[in-house]
Amino acid sequence: MSKPIPVGISARHLHVSREHLDILFGEGYQLTVKKDLSQPGQFACEEQVDLVTEKGSFKKVRILGPERKQTQIEIALTDALKLGIKPPVRDSGDLKGSPGLTLVGPKGEVKLEEGVIAACRHIHMTIADAAELGLKDKDIVKVRCNGERGLIYDNVLARVSDSFKLECHLDTDEGNAAKINTGNTVEIVK
Amino acid sequence: MSKPIPVGISARHLHVSREHLDILFGEGYQLTVKKDLSQPGQFACEEQVDLVTEKGSFKKVRILGPERKQTQIEIALTDALKLGIKPPVRDSGDLKGSPGLTLVGPKGEVKLEEGVIAACRHIHMTIADAAELGLKDKDIVKVRCNGERGLIYDNVLARVSDSFKLECHLDTDEGNAAKINTGNTVEIVK
Repeated sequence: MSKPIPVGISARHLHVSREHLDILFGEGYQLTVKKDLSQPGQFACEEQVDLVTEKGSFKKVRILGPERKQTQIEIALTDALKLGIKPPVRDSGDLKGSPGLTLVGPKGEVKLEEGVIAACRHIHMTIADAAELGLKDKDIVKVRCNGERGLIYDNVLARVSDSFKLECHLDTDEGNAAKINTGNTVEIVK
Repeated sequence: MSKPIPVGISARHLHVSREHLDILFGEGYQLTVKKDLSQPGQFACEEQVDLVTEKGSFKKVRILGPERKQTQIEIALTDALKLGIKPPVRDSGDLKGSPGLTLVGPKGEVKLEEGVIAACRHIHMTIADAAELGLKDKDIVKVRCNGERGLIYDNVLARVSDSFKLECHLDTDEGNAAKINTGNTVEIVK
């Protein structure tokens, strides 16, 4: 029996740059912590914006803080279909060539040329977790989800840092395909 | 290398009974074929209805024909979250204890007490296909999807009949979690 890894299901959300926060919420605006997330230092904000394309929109999509260098929107492929865009499956921060959309905030709009991705599934872990699991940073592993919609995910990226907490991040499509939720556990398959 | 099996991704849809068709579209109304589906005798209809709950709705959800004994609504769990209901994962026709919702058609509304399910993933196959694959009706198999979001689905039901055509049916969550579409192929893993 492998070490159980808690699951975190990420609903569509975005990270914003200082420059875009100024436009969307006003010059010098500071994000408000609504709730701390499981990864240390990360938090869900009170602030929400609309994601708009020619084909569709999502209202009130939550910003996750703190601010980042680049604005990044993470959506599920089911969401992408509604918006009529084709985001690549990427690791966080790798936005080159990804599609854009328009962000609508209470004080202004930002028309992004790129920044929308479907997040590559990954496991956050500390150096001690990685040692216990026999893994190193950037290893690619398989992960088993049990239950009536059980399955094994290939190509799950291990991300190792002592600033992380052990957690496997999946998007809503991936969580629903396996019928698992935040708080359930998965295990690495050798 | 196992025999490639074509994939069919099912978006949310419904099957309707004669009784409900009378209410939604008018007494004696006949469904109109828009497009034949891959399974012989099954077709997408021109007719669409709205799915409505207290929490949300989907407009213009397509009816698949022909008429059935029981009205059955098949949605993805991502859809279920928007509607605020919790459909069980079930084989087609097994509706007992499932949640209901309100169907809104051009001529009337039907408030269903039950009928909403998330379809259990399954493979339609002929008797000859089953023989070639070493399977029989109601066997449970594992199915591999390749690619950047590759994965292996457990608990895939084999449905064998000479009225079927070889095809693995997944819902939109399952297709998007694996980044596969109708027309891609999967294979059975022994």
